[in-house]
Amino acid sequence: MRNAVGVDNSFPEPETPFSVSVILPPPLMDLHKVPTPPSKTTFEVLKIRFSDIFFPENPLKQFKNQSVCRKWVLAIQYLFPIFQWGPNYSLKLLRSDIVSGFTIASLAIPQGISYAKLANLPPIIGLYSSFVPPLIYAVLGSSKDLAVGPVSIASLVMGSMLREKISPTQNPILYLQLAFTATFFAGVFQASLGLLRLGLMVDFLSRPTLLGFMGGAAIIVSLQQLKGLLGIVHFTKQMGIVPVLNSVFSHTSEWAWETSLMGFCFLGLLLVARHISSRKPNLFWVSAAAPLFSVILSTLLVYIFKAQHHGISIIGQLQEGLNPPSTNLLCFHGPYLGLAIKTGIVTGILSLTEGIAVGRTFASLKNYQVDGNKEMMAIGFMNMAGSCASCYVTTGSFSRSAVNYNAGSKTAVSNIVMAGTVMVTLLFLMPLFHYTPNAILGAIIITAVVGLIDLRAAYEIWKVDRLDFFACLSAFFGVLFISVQMGLAIAVGISIFKILLHVTRPNTVILGNIPATNVFRDIGHYKEASRIPSFLILGIQSPIYFANATYLQERINRWIEEEEDRIKNSRDLTLKCVILDMTAVTAIDTSGINFLAELKKTLHKKSLQLVLANPVGDVMVKLQCSPAMDAFQSDSLYLTVAEAVLAISSNFKDYP
Amino acid sequence: MRNAVGVDNSFPEPETPFSVSVILPPPLMDLHKVPTPPSKTTFEVLKIRFSDIFFPENPLKQFKNQSVCRKWVLAIQYLFPIFQWGPNYSLKLLRSDIVSGFTIASLAIPQGISYAKLANLPPIIGLYSSFVPPLIYAVLGSSKDLAVGPVSIASLVMGSMLREKISPTQNPILYLQLAFTATFFAGVFQASLGLLRLGLMVDFLSRPTLLGFMGGAAIIVSLQQLKGLLGIVHFTKQMGIVPVLNSVFSHTSEWAWETSLMGFCFLGLLLVARHISSRKPNLFWVSAAAPLFSVILSTLLVYIFKAQHHGISIIGQLQEGLNPPSTNLLCFHGPYLGLAIKTGIVTGILSLTEGIAVGRTFASLKNYQVDGNKEMMAIGFMNMAGSCASCYVTTGSFSRSAVNYNAGSKTAVSNIVMAGTVMVTLLFLMPLFHYTPNAILGAIIITAVVGLIDLRAAYEIWKVDRLDFFACLSAFFGVLFISVQMGLAIAVGISIFKILLHVTRPNTVILGNIPATNVFRDIGHYKEASRIPSFLILGIQSPIYFANATYLQERINRWIEEEEDRIKNSRDLTLKCVILDMTAVTAIDTSGINFLAELKKTLHKKSLQLVLANPVGDVMVKLQCSPAMDAFQSDSLYLTVAEAVLAISSNFKDYP
Repeated sequence: MRNAVGVDNSFPEPETPFSVSVILPPPLMDLHKVPTPPSKTTFEVLKIRFSDIFFPENPLKQFKNQSVCRKWVLAIQYLFPIFQWGPNYSLKLLRSDIVSGFTIASLAIPQGISYAKLANLPPIIGLYSSFVPPLIYAVLGSSKDLAVGPVSIASLVMGSMLREKISPTQNPILYLQLAFTATFFAGVFQASLGLLRLGLMVDFLSRPTLLGFMGGAAIIVSLQQLKGLLGIVHFTKQMGIVPVLNSVFSHTSEWAWETSLMGFCFLGLLLVARHISSRKPNLFWVSAAAPLFSVILSTLLVYIFKAQHHGISIIGQLQEGLNPPSTNLLCFHGPYLGLAIKTGIVTGILSLTEGIAVGRTFASLKNYQVDGNKEMMAIGFMNMAGSCASCYVTTGSFSRSAVNYNAGSKTAVSNIVMAGTVMVTLLFLMPLFHYTPNAILGAIIITAVVGLIDLRAAYEIWKVDRLDFFACLSAFFGVLFISVQMGLAIAVGISIFKILLHVTRPNTVILGNIPATNVFRDIGHYKEASRIPSFLILGIQSPIYFANATYLQERINRWIEEEEDRIKNSRDLTLKCVILDMTAVTAIDTSGINFLAELKKTLHKKSLQLVLANPVGDVMVKLQCSPAMDAFQSDSLYLTVAEAVLAISSNFKDYP
Repeated sequence: MRNAVGVDNSFPEPETPFSVSVILPPPLMDLHKVPTPPSKTTFEVLKIRFSDIFFPENPLKQFKNQSVCRKWVLAIQYLFPIFQWGPNYSLKLLRSDIVSGFTIASLAIPQGISYAKLANLPPIIGLYSSFVPPLIYAVLGSSKDLAVGPVSIASLVMGSMLREKISPTQNPILYLQLAFTATFFAGVFQASLGLLRLGLMVDFLSRPTLLGFMGGAAIIVSLQQLKGLLGIVHFTKQMGIVPVLNSVFSHTSEWAWETSLMGFCFLGLLLVARHISSRKPNLFWVSAAAPLFSVILSTLLVYIFKAQHHGISIIGQLQEGLNPPSTNLLCFHGPYLGLAIKTGIVTGILSLTEGIAVGRTFASLKNYQVDGNKEMMAIGFMNMAGSCASCYVTTGSFSRSAVNYNAGSKTAVSNIVMAGTVMVTLLFLMPLFHYTPNAILGAIIITAVVGLIDLRAAYEIWKVDRLDFFACLSAFFGVLFISVQMGLAIAVGISIFKILLHVTRPNTVILGNIPATNVFRDIGHYKEASRIPSFLILGIQSPIYFANATYLQERINRWIEEEEDRIKNSRDLTLKCVILDMTAVTAIDTSGINFLAELKKTLHKKSLQLVLANPVGDVMVKLQCSPAMDAFQSDSLYLTVAEAVLAISSNFKDYP
C-alpha cells in the first residue's frame, strides 16, 4: 500500500472566494529532498541580516516611489514629528490639550521639586527640568501621550551614584557640574543608541528584573523619606536598608511630633486620593490634583501658624527666573569624568527603558505605533539640550503620562502647555513655595514610588516562571541590601544568565507518532504519542553551538543508553536508527557541525544509523560549506520525521 | 470531501520483524487538541531540569540494583579510576607503557625547562611539575592517553599576568609564592567546577575564539624567543607585538652571531623533525626525540667549544634533588591575594579547556568515554597537590599526549614511567644541563607553539561562519596588540555576544505549503513551497523572551505590512489570518506571553485572526498559568500548521 495516496482535500465549493492548495499526505515512497537554499553572496546575506537586526520596521519604506520634493518633506516630518501632526492641529484638540496640560502641570511642579531632592539637587533644578525638556520633546517626540519630566528611579540612581564619590552639601558646585555632565552623557548615549539603532541594549532589562529593582528602590526611597516625615536631622547618606533603618531608629530623640503629624496626615490624604483614582479612572483628577492641593494647603498652614518656628523644616528661599544656561558647568576632563560617564550611561539606560515602555503602553491603548529608535533619539537630544539649560535627566514619566492620558491629552501640545505653566511658576510664583514644608515633599515622593511595588505582577511571574521570579527577588534584595547599582547589575546578570543557560543546556525530547497522523510530537507532552519500534526520535530544542555541543553529545548518549535499557527490559525490537528532529535547531556553528559529524561516527561504531529530519535553511547552508557534510548524504537528510521513518524502515526490510 | 481519509499506510509484509504504526493524513475535520502536558509539581520540574543540567550522563546509573559491598567497590573505582583498570593490568600493557613513557619523558624534560622560563619561573620548577602531577593524575584520571605536565598557553598567561604586578627578577621569592598560590587556586577552582558539575563554564570558550587566541599567543611567544635566539640582553617585559618587535629591532647591536647561528640551526632541525612526523605518523619518534637530541647535542657543543665564553648564554647551575615541599610558600593574605586568585582562575580555565579537549580527542580516537566533570576534579586535585610540592599549573598537554598516543601508550602507567624518568633526572642528571644554551630552549618553545597556528582550521571557519571567523580574528589581534588577557576576554565576550544576538534578533521566516503534502516550510529555503491565500504563516525561530519580544512585535508588523503590500500589487485575496508556527519556540517567559497577548489584540483591531501552531509543552504550561491564556482558547491552538489552515479556512466560508 506504499503508493502515493492521491486524496483530493481541496475545497471544491464554488462559493468560497479562495482555493486552498491541495493538502495531501506525502506520497510515501516519493521522498522529498532537502535542498540547500538558493545560494547568496556574503554581501547579500549580511545585507538581509543587517536589515533584520537594525531595521525591523523598515523606516525607509515610505520614501519609496516619491518625488524628490516629497522626500524632503517626508524626511523633515520623520525627524520632527511635529510637522506631521502640526498641520492638522485644530482648536478642538487644543482645548483637550490645555486641560490635560494644566492637570499635569499641577502634578509636575511638586514632583519636580521632590525628585530634585531625591537626586540631592536644589529643588529649582527639578522645575527647570520640567520646562525645557517638554518643549524639545514636543518637537521631536512621536508619542502623543508621553508627559516629560524628571522621574523617581533615574533621580534616585543619579543621586546615589554621585553621592558615593561627592558630597552634595560639602561640594555643591562640583556635584551640580557632575549632575549636568552626567545628564549630557546620558543624552549622548541615548541618542547614539537611537542613531545606531541599538535599541537592543534596552531589551536586556527584563520585566521581572525591573519589577524587583523598582520594588526595592521604592522601599529604600520611602524609608529615606522618613527623614523628612519624622523631622530627623542626622541621617545616613548610604542607600542600604540597614543603615537607613538604623538612622531612623537610633535617632528617635530627634523625631519631631509636629512634623510627623503634618507629614503623615498629608501622606494619608495623598494615598487615599491615589486609591480613589485607581478605583475609578474617571476620577483621575483627584490623585492628579492632590499633590498641588497638599502643597498649597500645607504651605498655607505653615504660613498661618508660623510653624517653621515650631520645628517644621521648610524649603526656604527659591531663586526666581527661567533656566540659566549651564554649558559652562559641563566638564569633560578631570578625575570625575569617568564617574559622570558611568552615571550618565546607567541613568540613561534606566530613563530610556521607562520612557519607551511608557510611550509604548499608551500608544498601544490608542492603537498607534511608537518608533523605539526615534524615541531614543528624541529623549537623547532632549537630555543633551537639557544639560545645557540647567536640567538633569528627564524622560517620559509613568505617573505623569497616565494622568495626561486620563485627562484626555490629544497631542504633545499638552507638554507645551505644561512647560508654559511651569514657566509662569518660575517667573512669578517661586516666592509662594518659601513656606512649603519638606515633610510634604517626602509624602509626595512616597505616594509616587509606592505605586512601583507591584505584588500582583510579582505573583503572576511566580506562577509563570520560577527563574524569572528568582531574578525579580534577586534584584529586589540586591537593591535593598547592597546598593541600587548592584541590584541593577545583578538583575541584568541573571537575565542574561537565564538566556545563556537555556542555550548551554537545551532541552531534548523524545518524539512519538500521534496515532492516525504523520505528525511526531514530544511523548512527555502528548500522551497519545507512541514510540516507533527500532527508532529513537529526538527533538533538539535549541541551536547547536560550541556552548552546548559537548552537553548534547553526553545527553544524547544517555538517551540512547536509556532507550537500550528500556528495550532490554520490555523485549522490544532492538534500536537501529536515531533520528534528530532539527526543526528547532535554527542555527549551527562550526562546533555544532563537528558535533554532528562526531555523533554520526560514534553511532556508526555502535551500528546505529543517524539521520536528520527537517534541517532548516541556515543549517543546510553550513552543512554544505563544511567537509562534515560528506557524512550526511541525501540518505541522511529528510523533509519530515515521518518520511525518514518510512524510508529507513523500508531499508530494514532490504537489509535485515 | 472533508471526511476523514482512512488510508492504511501500515506495513503489511509479514517478513518485516517490526510494524510501524499507521501513518495517516490527519482526519481533516477531526482536529487534534493541543493538550497541556501532564502537570508536575515545582519540585518534579526542578528535579528533572536539575538532572538534565548537571548530570547529563547520569553517573549514578551503575550503582542501581547493586549490593552494598559492590556499591563501595564501585564508588572507590569511580573516585580512583586506577582501581578500575589496575586489576586487569598485564605485562604486555606494561611493555607498551614503558616505551611510550620513555618517549614522552624525552620530550617532557626539555619542554619542562622551557615552559618554566615562559612563566618566568626557575627552570627546575618545570621539571618538578613533570614529576608529581603525572603521578597524581595516574591515580585519579580517567583518560588513557593524556600526558600531564606544564603547557605553553597556561605558562604564558601565568607569566604575563603575574609580571604585570611583580618583577620575577627583582622579587623572585614573592613571584614564586604568587605562582604557587595561583596554582593552588587554579586547582581549587578546577576541582570545584568538577564537584559542582559546572563544566558549562568551560563551554564558553568556543573553538574559533580559542584558535585565534592560541594563534596570537603563539606568535607573541615565538617573537619573545628571539631574545634567546638572537642573544639580546635588553628586552621588553611587555607582551604586545609592538614593544616586542621594537625590542628586537632597536637592539640590533646586541645580536650575537654565535648564539643566532646555533639557535637557528637547531630551530631548523626541530622544524624539519616536526614536519617529518606530521607527514608520516609512524615516524612520530623523530619529533618526539628531537628536543632531547638537540639539548644533548647543543650542550655537548657548548661544553666542547667552551662556547659560554663566546657570548652564548647557558642555563647554569641547577639544583639537584626531588621537589621540596612548598606549603610554606602558599600565601592566603596580603595585597596580592586578589592577583593570585585571578591568575589562578584564568590559568585554571585555560588549562582545563586544553586538558579536557585533549582527553576527549584521544578518547574518541580509541572509542572510550572521558567524564568531563571527573577529569576536572582529577586535574584540580593534581594542581592543588602540585602547588604544595613546588609545581606550577599543569594539565594534559596536546603535543605530549599526541606523542604518547602515537608511541602506543595503553594506560596512565605511561605517566608513571615518565615521572620515574624525570625523578632520575632530578636526582642524578641535573649537572648535565649546566651547559645547555638558552637559545635551544627558545627553539624548542617556538617549535611547540608554531603548531598552534592552524590556518587551515581558520579557513574552514571562514567558509562556514563569518561571525565565528570575526571572533577568531578579534581574539588573535586582541592578543597581539593589547594583551593576552584582553585577547581572551574579547574572545569570550564575542562568543557570548553571538549567542545573545541570535536570541535578541531571531530569524522569522514565511512558511509555504510543499505541494502534495501537508508540510509547511520556509519559502526562502524550499522553492516549491507556495503561500496559502489569505494566510500569513510565520515561523519564529527562537524562544520568545523579554530580550526579543519588542523586536518580534516590530518584525511581525513589518511582515504583515509587506504581505498586505504584496497582496495589493498582485490582487491576491485579502489577508485574514496570521499563523505563528511555534515549533522552534522552545521556551517563553512572562514578557513573551505578554507579547503574544498584545499581538493578538493588535491584530484583532486590524480584523486579523492570530493562531498558534504546535506550541511545545513548556510553552503550553506557561500559557496555561497566565491570564493571557484567555486570549488563546482552543480555536487558537492547533497541532500543525496544516490543521490550522484547514480549520480556519472552513470558518471563512461560514462567516465570509
